[in-house]
Amino acid sequence: MTGNAKPAGTNTVRVAIVGASGYTGAELVRLLVRHPGAEIGVLTADRKAGRSLGAVFPHLAGAALPDLVALDTVDWDAVDVVFCGLPHGTTQEVVAALPSHLKVIDLSADFRLADADTYARWYGHAHRAPALQKDAVYGLSELAREAIAKARLVACPGCYPTAALLPLVPLIEAGGIVPEDIIIDAKSGVSGAGRGLKESTLFAEVGEGIHAYGVASHRHTPEIEQGLARAAGRPVAVSFTPHLVPMNRGILATIYVKLADGATADGLRAMLAERYRGEPFVRVVPEGAQPATRHVRGSNHCLIGVFADRLAGRAIIVSVLDNLVKGASGQAVQNMNLICGFAETDGLEQEPLFP
Amino acid sequence: MTGNAKPAGTNTVRVAIVGASGYTGAELVRLLVRHPGAEIGVLTADRKAGRSLGAVFPHLAGAALPDLVALDTVDWDAVDVVFCGLPHGTTQEVVAALPSHLKVIDLSADFRLADADTYARWYGHAHRAPALQKDAVYGLSELAREAIAKARLVACPGCYPTAALLPLVPLIEAGGIVPEDIIIDAKSGVSGAGRGLKESTLFAEVGEGIHAYGVASHRHTPEIEQGLARAAGRPVAVSFTPHLVPMNRGILATIYVKLADGATADGLRAMLAERYRGEPFVRVVPEGAQPATRHVRGSNHCLIGVFADRLAGRAIIVSVLDNLVKGASGQAVQNMNLICGFAETDGLEQEPLFP
Amino acid sequence: MTGNAKPAGTNTVRVAIVGASGYTGAELVRLLVRHPGAEIGVLTADRKAGRSLGAVFPHLAGAALPDLVALDTVDWDAVDVVFCGLPHGTTQEVVAALPSHLKVIDLSADFRLADADTYARWYGHAHRAPALQKDAVYGLSELAREAIAKARLVACPGCYPTAALLPLVPLIEAGGIVPEDIIIDAKSGVSGAGRGLKESTLFAEVGEGIHAYGVASHRHTPEIEQGLARAAGRPVAVSFTPHLVPMNRGILATIYVKLADGATADGLRAMLAERYRGEPFVRVVPEGAQPATRHVRGSNHCLIGVFADRLAGRAIIVSVLDNLVKGASGQAVQNMNLICGFAETDGLEQEPLFP
Amino acid sequence: MTGNAKPAGTNTVRVAIVGASGYTGAELVRLLVRHPGAEIGVLTADRKAGRSLGAVFPHLAGAALPDLVALDTVDWDAVDVVFCGLPHGTTQEVVAALPSHLKVIDLSADFRLADADTYARWYGHAHRAPALQKDAVYGLSELAREAIAKARLVACPGCYPTAALLPLVPLIEAGGIVPEDIIIDAKSGVSGAGRGLKESTLFAEVGEGIHAYGVASHRHTPEIEQGLARAAGRPVAVSFTPHLVPMNRGILATIYVKLADGATADGLRAMLAERYRGEPFVRVVPEGAQPATRHVRGSNHCLIGVFADRLAGRAIIVSVLDNLVKGASGQAVQNMNLICGFAETDGLEQEPLFP
Repeated sequence: MTGNAKPAGTNTVRVAIVGASGYTGAELVRLLVRHPGAEIGVLTADRKAGRSLGAVFPHLAGAALPDLVALDTVDWDAVDVVFCGLPHGTTQEVVAALPSHLKVIDLSADFRLADADTYARWYGHAHRAPALQKDAVYGLSELAREAIAKARLVACPGCYPTAALLPLVPLIEAGGIVPEDIIIDAKSGVSGAGRGLKESTLFAEVGEGIHAYGVASHRHTPEIEQGLARAAGRPVAVSFTPHLVPMNRGILATIYVKLADGATADGLRAMLAERYRGEPFVRVVPEGAQPATRHVRGSNHCLIGVFADRLAGRAIIVSVLDNLVKGASGQAVQNMNLICGFAETDGLEQEPLFP
Repeated sequence: MTGNAKPAGTNTVRVAIVGASGYTGAELVRLLVRHPGAEIGVLTADRKAGRSLGAVFPHLAGAALPDLVALDTVDWDAVDVVFCGLPHGTTQEVVAALPSHLKVIDLSADFRLADADTYARWYGHAHRAPALQKDAVYGLSELAREAIAKARLVACPGCYPTAALLPLVPLIEAGGIVPEDIIIDAKSGVSGAGRGLKESTLFAEVGEGIHAYGVASHRHTPEIEQGLARAAGRPVAVSFTPHLVPMNRGILATIYVKLADGATADGLRAMLAERYRGEPFVRVVPEGAQPATRHVRGSNHCLIGVFADRLAGRAIIVSVLDNLVKGASGQAVQNMNLICGFAETDGLEQEPLFP
Repeated sequence: MTGNAKPAGTNTVRVAIVGASGYTGAELVRLLVRHPGAEIGVLTADRKAGRSLGAVFPHLAGAALPDLVALDTVDWDAVDVVFCGLPHGTTQEVVAALPSHLKVIDLSADFRLADADTYARWYGHAHRAPALQKDAVYGLSELAREAIAKARLVACPGCYPTAALLPLVPLIEAGGIVPEDIIIDAKSGVSGAGRGLKESTLFAEVGEGIHAYGVASHRHTPEIEQGLARAAGRPVAVSFTPHLVPMNRGILATIYVKLADGATADGLRAMLAERYRGEPFVRVVPEGAQPATRHVRGSNHCLIGVFADRLAGRAIIVSVLDNLVKGASGQAVQNMNLICGFAETDGLEQEPLFP
Repeated sequence: MTGNAKPAGTNTVRVAIVGASGYTGAELVRLLVRHPGAEIGVLTADRKAGRSLGAVFPHLAGAALPDLVALDTVDWDAVDVVFCGLPHGTTQEVVAALPSHLKVIDLSADFRLADADTYARWYGHAHRAPALQKDAVYGLSELAREAIAKARLVACPGCYPTAALLPLVPLIEAGGIVPEDIIIDAKSGVSGAGRGLKESTLFAEVGEGIHAYGVASHRHTPEIEQGLARAAGRPVAVSFTPHLVPMNRGILATIYVKLADGATADGLRAMLAERYRGEPFVRVVPEGAQPATRHVRGSNHCLIGVFADRLAGRAIIVSVLDNLVKGASGQAVQNMNLICGFAETDGLEQEPLFP
């Protein structure tokens, strides 16, 4: 097929993708295979070692890629940057064991929470790499560029937290909304649940229907709260309810907020437009326009709309993104670009795929 | 095919369906063709007069049914009950012109709002049958049985209002929640938009995506507010945001409420369980169970779940129903049963279709 | 909810559903719970014994049903008819061990093939209940009524074979087509793959796409060939290719046939219309009408259309059915009706659910 | 958003897209906006003139693009290449009226059929630009590179014909199959029907179901036959039946062929592998692998698999492509690359989007 035409030049960043047999791994490959400055040198998948990636993900069979290998056979000297797409919980030890010359961009939840107690409470065990946990930078690209650029370990935000924090953090920082009264009703496509076998993600269990899950108890909650608290300068609790929608990709968050004194919905929209002016991936839609997940599918874009609520003193914010791109692998590549000094849009320039 | 085995006996109610070429019309036929006490005598569809219903809805081609006729050719003497499934706005004059011996069960929005000013403000014109408007009974079956049974004209609630009011009205009446702080985030399948031609409901515009629409401005808003106000005994405004989900049928409403002093989520669940004990169509699911639209598909059921919120003093209610059944034609048949003295479950006993 | 209003009278057939935790088991319950002459007395599911069916299939939580029990705890004296919905391969021993007073209606593939060698060749092992295998009646209801009515063990046809044989058997018997040149291109919804965990039926692996599987090697092939051979009076091979479609329910078979000398597409349509005249569940659509799976969803209907092909001397037949109803549980209930002397439509009278 | 970073240099081809408000128009923009050598200078849409493309297709709102204009206001001197995405029938006069310096790449059916009588028979009227009709080159890129490179007017093949001819033409030319016995059973996503308003493409009419349409009468039939006849050197009729699948994108063609004397399925696979060796967009999958539309989504790829049939002397070919890319706009860009001397993969290098 089209192959990977990039020569492995001296300025090329050599990339390893650990856990390449999951959806976020495949999405990293899709994006990186066209990246002008990165070369995929290693793909690991312990249980599928020895197979080609094309055997596991036929849509990528046309790309020139190394075969899958077991993690413990990797020659790390030939690698500059590691993307880690392992499941939550298994990542900590793996990252802790990596040589120190490697930059690490982690897509799991393992290094997102900075507070040891919060981690232990939500995940049921003490963190197994607490030193690293402390040093990890929370990689919401638009809001932490400088820290990310200098980081050795970046914890890429979850898909829901990205959709929530991109609009909320600037509004809290600008004093537009009350941090203590935020309700996030989120809707996600099914790929967010990963490729593991679960009855709950079989087609016939998900098609032609919608349901909420993890009401007020989803593990992305403390991650959102951490982001809101940092913006507010004080602890914040949030109401967060995700729903599963019969579609492959996409997250839409409908966020109900209380306006700060004197603030208006139009004012919030202006604050966000100002904050994201010139950003390549985040865009505030005009008044009346409706952000839709299908308008960002396959892209690293996030669209944000702001609406006046019928309840006095309140507003409604709608944000959308592709959970596998801006909500995972795209933001991870964006963070690699920051770390490696590439243009931030390198590898991420595709327009959305519609319909 | 299976035909309509019912003899037109002396105790049979003779039914006309006005506007039978829309989805709610077809759904009425699906339910009534198996009703033990009703006989479909008239099907109207002005632009398709002369055709069989099976030509318009092939799934019903096997049933023994009269052909479609124009409204102005109907012999009303041979009819006892009229279901009116015309679009909003066109219904008022039609209903006003019907002979007075007819019981009328209207599925449009035309007679749902009792207040003339509210109607005019949301629909942009004065009501054209104000006397009837005043007499119409709002047909939320479980909450207005006696009034419905005596009514000549029943205005069947909209799909969203049914999903919202079934849980909220008892909670307000029982003093469990604060009426002034209710946020309704609703998600609907596409059949709710009807069979008319709109770019926005083409498959390729709706598939594989989700978006909000009519944020804080949808016409079901005043209808919900009317129901809440009646329960509260004072005017109430509500935050209501609907979303379009890539599925044919189903509504899920996630409702964020503020608890009254001393109330708890468990308490709300108990209130609802008590209120709906013994009801054939409304069921409160146990703590932890997740109502899903696929669990009510094709049935007249409404499931309600109650969850503690992470925000102190708040709770989350999830209700689901099939927008074409309990949200439209099923509730209409239920109301006919009340009016005609049939068992309330007649014609409505099918279990949900899953998957 | 609506409950199960039927009294367990003296004339009621007492039913056990073995393997009630799969989709065909749940569909049997959906149909039988409204059956006027059957009472569900036993539901087995070994790994979920002790739970309610509503815990496993929430859409059925409203029905009054016995809890799930382990197979080896069943009191068979209290049962008249057993529906067996176990996976292929595990059924033979279970059925062989059942007391002889029981009528058995099996939905697996275990007793469909009458020839011991054919079974062994396609399933990789000798049949474990060869005596029963010989006595089992192939339960294509419309084409074997008398044998089914007298049978002790009925092997319900597979979903694909039902869609293929209902049109093809009458045409071969009437001499309208050449049995040796039949190509069946079938398309199925995902529920046909069952509720077991397989990567290939995860939503994200099936949504928004289509693919063929088991090309010229699917295990329904010998079953179709057996049916064709019986009609032709000689061995027949067939080309059969199934495809997986992103929908829950439905099978559409597009069948390419060679006309016998002198036959025409119109002639085939007339043959089928004649053969199925008066049948409650099989209907030949008029010339030009297009059978669609959505027109039979949830019903026991099968629609058949016949079209002239552009290749001289050939015709195209399209048949549709709901794989879980006429292709499985509905036909099973139809067979019970034949065995027990009920009206053949009992429990099967619902109209299709559209949209 | 990401914008269009390309400077309009002296070597840049200036492109106009006529009919930019349809799906193929939007898809051209998606591909061309990243093309290294083309600049989108004109977008026409008569009924939406004056609006931005982002207002019509919000997924493209982030790209730097000219506003939509009416066709008769275009300054053709500033244009080198015209892509014409108008509906069938309206294209002929428009193309005939274009200045002669323009290269024209037409995506409609208007110039695909070279024979005047065939055109008139299938479209019901004499061709309105018969001189152009004769000169147009049928733009199946892989099979007509040299003619396309020299053409002034290229008629891009239909989506179904592309899926059928890419495997069939080489096999006929190599003598592997019998041209007179080809049956094509094709399945398409709904975007192939365009963005026009039709009841038949409403979500609720298409979701959760499948049906055939245009059985043995679809207008792509003569186009396929033309291609087969050219390969065979004699007139050929074909059996072609399309089906509509509830997905946005993708075509899968299952093609039933009769082997030439001595040929085998393995031999056909080898013939195709040889013919397409080194091709960037067409790939023959290994024995046993199943082409799936989801493996080509959003890409210009076509995958082909070959399977032995159970009927002696026959084989089954499965081909898949994205109807909006290789089946329309992608192949159009590929043809522009051939005409303009660009690398054939320019603008077309994205990997498929899965899931």
